[in-house]
Amino acid sequence: MENGRSINVKTGQASGGLTLPEGRDFDLIALGRLCIDLNANEINRPMEETLTFTKYVGGSPANIAIGASRLGLRTAFIGKLADDQMGRFIEGYLRRDGIDTRGVSTDRTGAVTGLAFTEIKSPSDCSILMYRDNVADLLLSPSEVSEELIARSRLLLLSGTALAASPSREAALLALTYARRHGTAVAFDIDYRPYTWKSPEETAVYYNLAAEKSDIIVGTREEFDSMERFEHNPDRSDAFTASKWFGHAAGLVIVKHGKAGSVAYTRDGGEHRAVSYPANVIKTFGAGDSYAAGFLYGLLSGWAVDRSMSFGSAAASIVVSSHSCSDAMPTVRQVEEYIARCERGEIVAN
Amino acid sequence: MENGRSINVKTGQASGGLTLPEGRDFDLIALGRLCIDLNANEINRPMEETLTFTKYVGGSPANIAIGASRLGLRTAFIGKLADDQMGRFIEGYLRRDGIDTRGVSTDRTGAVTGLAFTEIKSPSDCSILMYRDNVADLLLSPSEVSEELIARSRLLLLSGTALAASPSREAALLALTYARRHGTAVAFDIDYRPYTWKSPEETAVYYNLAAEKSDIIVGTREEFDSMERFEHNPDRSDAFTASKWFGHAAGLVIVKHGKAGSVAYTRDGGEHRAVSYPANVIKTFGAGDSYAAGFLYGLLSGWAVDRSMSFGSAAASIVVSSHSCSDAMPTVRQVEEYIARCERGEIVAN
Amino acid sequence: MENGRSINVKTGQASGGLTLPEGRDFDLIALGRLCIDLNANEINRPMEETLTFTKYVGGSPANIAIGASRLGLRTAFIGKLADDQMGRFIEGYLRRDGIDTRGVSTDRTGAVTGLAFTEIKSPSDCSILMYRDNVADLLLSPSEVSEELIARSRLLLLSGTALAASPSREAALLALTYARRHGTAVAFDIDYRPYTWKSPEETAVYYNLAAEKSDIIVGTREEFDSMERFEHNPDRSDAFTASKWFGHAAGLVIVKHGKAGSVAYTRDGGEHRAVSYPANVIKTFGAGDSYAAGFLYGLLSGWAVDRSMSFGSAAASIVVSSHSCSDAMPTVRQVEEYIARCERGEIVAN
Amino acid sequence: MENGRSINVKTGQASGGLTLPEGRDFDLIALGRLCIDLNANEINRPMEETLTFTKYVGGSPANIAIGASRLGLRTAFIGKLADDQMGRFIEGYLRRDGIDTRGVSTDRTGAVTGLAFTEIKSPSDCSILMYRDNVADLLLSPSEVSEELIARSRLLLLSGTALAASPSREAALLALTYARRHGTAVAFDIDYRPYTWKSPEETAVYYNLAAEKSDIIVGTREEFDSMERFEHNPDRSDAFTASKWFGHAAGLVIVKHGKAGSVAYTRDGGEHRAVSYPANVIKTFGAGDSYAAGFLYGLLSGWAVDRSMSFGSAAASIVVSSHSCSDAMPTVRQVEEYIARCERGEIVAN
Repeated sequence: MENGRSINVKTGQASGGLTLPEGRDFDLIALGRLCIDLNANEINRPMEETLTFTKYVGGSPANIAIGASRLGLRTAFIGKLADDQMGRFIEGYLRRDGIDTRGVSTDRTGAVTGLAFTEIKSPSDCSILMYRDNVADLLLSPSEVSEELIARSRLLLLSGTALAASPSREAALLALTYARRHGTAVAFDIDYRPYTWKSPEETAVYYNLAAEKSDIIVGTREEFDSMERFEHNPDRSDAFTASKWFGHAAGLVIVKHGKAGSVAYTRDGGEHRAVSYPANVIKTFGAGDSYAAGFLYGLLSGWAVDRSMSFGSAAASIVVSSHSCSDAMPTVRQVEEYIARCERGEIVAN
Repeated sequence: MENGRSINVKTGQASGGLTLPEGRDFDLIALGRLCIDLNANEINRPMEETLTFTKYVGGSPANIAIGASRLGLRTAFIGKLADDQMGRFIEGYLRRDGIDTRGVSTDRTGAVTGLAFTEIKSPSDCSILMYRDNVADLLLSPSEVSEELIARSRLLLLSGTALAASPSREAALLALTYARRHGTAVAFDIDYRPYTWKSPEETAVYYNLAAEKSDIIVGTREEFDSMERFEHNPDRSDAFTASKWFGHAAGLVIVKHGKAGSVAYTRDGGEHRAVSYPANVIKTFGAGDSYAAGFLYGLLSGWAVDRSMSFGSAAASIVVSSHSCSDAMPTVRQVEEYIARCERGEIVAN
Repeated sequence: MENGRSINVKTGQASGGLTLPEGRDFDLIALGRLCIDLNANEINRPMEETLTFTKYVGGSPANIAIGASRLGLRTAFIGKLADDQMGRFIEGYLRRDGIDTRGVSTDRTGAVTGLAFTEIKSPSDCSILMYRDNVADLLLSPSEVSEELIARSRLLLLSGTALAASPSREAALLALTYARRHGTAVAFDIDYRPYTWKSPEETAVYYNLAAEKSDIIVGTREEFDSMERFEHNPDRSDAFTASKWFGHAAGLVIVKHGKAGSVAYTRDGGEHRAVSYPANVIKTFGAGDSYAAGFLYGLLSGWAVDRSMSFGSAAASIVVSSHSCSDAMPTVRQVEEYIARCERGEIVAN
Repeated sequence: MENGRSINVKTGQASGGLTLPEGRDFDLIALGRLCIDLNANEINRPMEETLTFTKYVGGSPANIAIGASRLGLRTAFIGKLADDQMGRFIEGYLRRDGIDTRGVSTDRTGAVTGLAFTEIKSPSDCSILMYRDNVADLLLSPSEVSEELIARSRLLLLSGTALAASPSREAALLALTYARRHGTAVAFDIDYRPYTWKSPEETAVYYNLAAEKSDIIVGTREEFDSMERFEHNPDRSDAFTASKWFGHAAGLVIVKHGKAGSVAYTRDGGEHRAVSYPANVIKTFGAGDSYAAGFLYGLLSGWAVDRSMSFGSAAASIVVSSHSCSDAMPTVRQVEEYIARCERGEIVAN
């Protein structure tokens, strides 16, 4: 698998014209779910035959926040945890990784922690068994969203799953209002999971409302398709998609095409295609989250879009070569070494 | 009670700079609830002592649509009816009044028609006993909203109650997207009813989302207060409120202050205060709806804001002098005659 | 329509061997729904064309309790009312009719009063439009059922609708336990209404549980069919049905066959068929409730089964000749006069 | 810990007068939940510090069925599984243990498998973190209960948790009706778990309904207390409790008093107290289930109550000495050897 190396295919500013605010206490504040991954220890077989599992912190925004913190970004979180052993495990893990958890509240209604049991039948045949009923993360309420923390952050990362149900949906929409009020940039990671959503129409409506208020929008082609349910883009054109969002607040739109790589469009007309770094893949989980952490690290460091994409791709290759997602998030030095080894031909895809 | 006569207190264009599209098949398309009013025949007593009720079509957007049609506007409706005798009564009534009901769908899940039993203890002490559980109007789904009908209309009137629950909430938000896409003007009547809403935070979030996409916003001071829950307007200043919305799409903001009259702000700096026409008041129900119908009739006729407000106030005075809301909606000739009689001193307030 | 005159077709004791406790403060305590009937004033037309309605107390157990009290029985009620004008109207009506309402509690959660809009297209084509969402009567909880009131009553009348949803279902089942503990006789009126029940299987399970603890079971053939969903009675035999219940607590089983009359089976082998008194029928609503009130009056007066059935039939004929149910419940003198007039040939069926 | 050896404290028949039907295809058919236990591999610490878990089949009736099958009883199950890897794992496990799973249906609505994460802080400080939202086992419906399988079984074991929610509640109540219809003995294991139940009143109502139809009732003193919420047993007397149920269908009532041992009452006046066998306890989970399996094995083998209790106690001591519940269920030979070793003083309590 090739996970990286971006190519600037259309001329534009290196930064794509996107500017992020400076002089704030946090580089990145993530909002959304905090869950538990239970990864089968016995891999390359169906879950019916696995007997032991290892516990990790999981959930896309949790993974991105952990990845961002490992890369040295000053990171905070807005979310909600169950009042149980799983919730306390997650909060302890975040704190030990240096993430500010003042924005993380605790449910008192008996909600549980979301679970994801992973099944790895082969490196390319992975699936997840989710427990998402009555989860604490979707009970985050608007009054628990700290306007102050958002005002003190350079970038708000919103995971689309937070829009899947009330009151988390309203909390997420309010967070976007706070971000726009205070000039905090918004990165919207669509992160579509069918659980909890009631209908594709509902999904399309809220994803569009959130994207309208976002500076950076990241998703797969299929995720953007789901947002265009009430539109006319029969060719599923990425350029059409990007240009629609440049008509709102967006400055950067990234469409992911799986193995075919990602395309980043910038408002100034730039178009950047990333190709991948090789990896000895164990499973595909976590690739998107480590990519996002690495890419946002680059943007927040003032790097060009190309260099940021390349860095994100290398970070993704590291995570897919490992058994876990959150635990495997690399440091800057680990990413740099991985890139160097790839360039020396020491790492080849399986 | 004085219900009318507007005064231009700050200079601005007569139209306030608001322009409405021309050359469309419908002047006004209303979206929201279609209900039944059951008005006590025995008035000036508590409902425990009333024994007979008369049935009328009700619901704020239904009343406004009926009022608009009586005034000669080409009117359509987007809504959902129960599959029962009440639903069929409502559709027949709308059709007989010349309202296009192609956008009105029928529920097949066993939902009921919303009811409002009115209690008139005195002209100034009126209350409503609502039946709003499992009502058909809140089951309007996004796929039932006709983009074509909205594209063919000059003005979309959205009643805020449609935002109170899913899937009607998503249907209403999608209708706003369609309106903006096709240049259809949007009038947002906040119409706050606590039933069905889960929390004041939820209310504030969705009212703000809808208002951001509206050209005309109409509400009481209390309704605007409920939208400013996550803001800082401690003096409850109307000017602050209006200026906030001029930062989005709005060109005209009307704040209603009950007996103290309404204030209309226009984006070009105009400020118009309406005072009321006298009326021999039977009950206060329906005043806002007939005012809205009359005022929008004026705007859609290209009248100045002042004249439109004055016309709306006279229409309101007619309705509060009657036993019903929808049935009492006046024609243009009736409004003109009422104004003339007021000017001749033939009508005095009770 | 013929509504009365029972015929003893198989020998048995006149009382059927059923004995009811004596020396208690109340003759009859009813448990179940207290609702509002809204009867169309304009009859013999579809409801789409009716414009005014008259309000009455309704609900099968309410009607039976009112009927019983009119006949002179010392009557009490266990139920739950909405905290609104409808609820207060109902409680006032019961109290004015001499019914003890200490067992009637008031909801504080915002539940509403059940409604039944009646449509009378012709004397034989009547239907009801029900409002049964979030109704107060189904919120009666076990802790609100007074063991003391049941212990002080000779007969508990349970309406099957109380079993349709929790917590009223558990309250009704607990009332049966109290009745058996204190030797209070139980009359179970199946009163099946499809609203609120989730499935026919659920209905069958709870109707059987209640019937197992009942001394008197009354229902239509169709209602008994619905209870035999998990049994084998392919011929829909009344004798099979009765004998099944005699294997539990029942001493008297009445199967109603509409116009074909009712059959009462007694544990000692008696079988009684009732034929009807003539009536000038306006609508069929309320026939069963007035029959039940009259029949139970007879049993509680120590009359033979035959005479009790005959009295109930005459009471039913009076109610179907009237516009309302509860308001039309007759006194003993009115029933006796009606029977006398029938016997003199002064009343003939329409 | 002492887990066994019963003492006949009041004279009665050895069998207590309880007779179980003979000549049937199955000795025991269990009805209720089929779940997954996730037992922490790292014990004697809080779950916040455990990182790996081992997966087992769990749920009280599943454990009892597995235990019964290991002891050589012909065993079947009535239940419902999620359509996922967990569900398939459970069904495979039961089948490999020789349990007939024709009565086990599969959910198609997206329900999940119940989970129990166990935390073992010390042998005497154990707790469980439950996932019981939207579980498949509580979706068992009445139409999925096989009357034929129950008719072909000597004993139906009902776990009280099946009564916690609809439609499983109605399925369980119907199973009791089938058992009584066909002379199948019923053992009711109260197995109270607060999850899912809406109120203590609701719990009391359904536990009493089930116990009224049971031949054998087993529970802790606290569980019997919860059933006596609407009764008067201020001294919490076991004899009062037992005698109440002898007034219904029961022939044997077992009240468990934790470390103080169990008391079995028989309808003929017998009273048997069991004391425990020593055990090197790892955790307390599963003690009740293995006791039930062993005790019912004895009764179904025609043993006296005393000998059956003793055998159940030894089986319980084996399970609490092990890391799992279901996996550790012993064979007859293992129980006999354990008793022999205890008698030789080779096993002492920790």
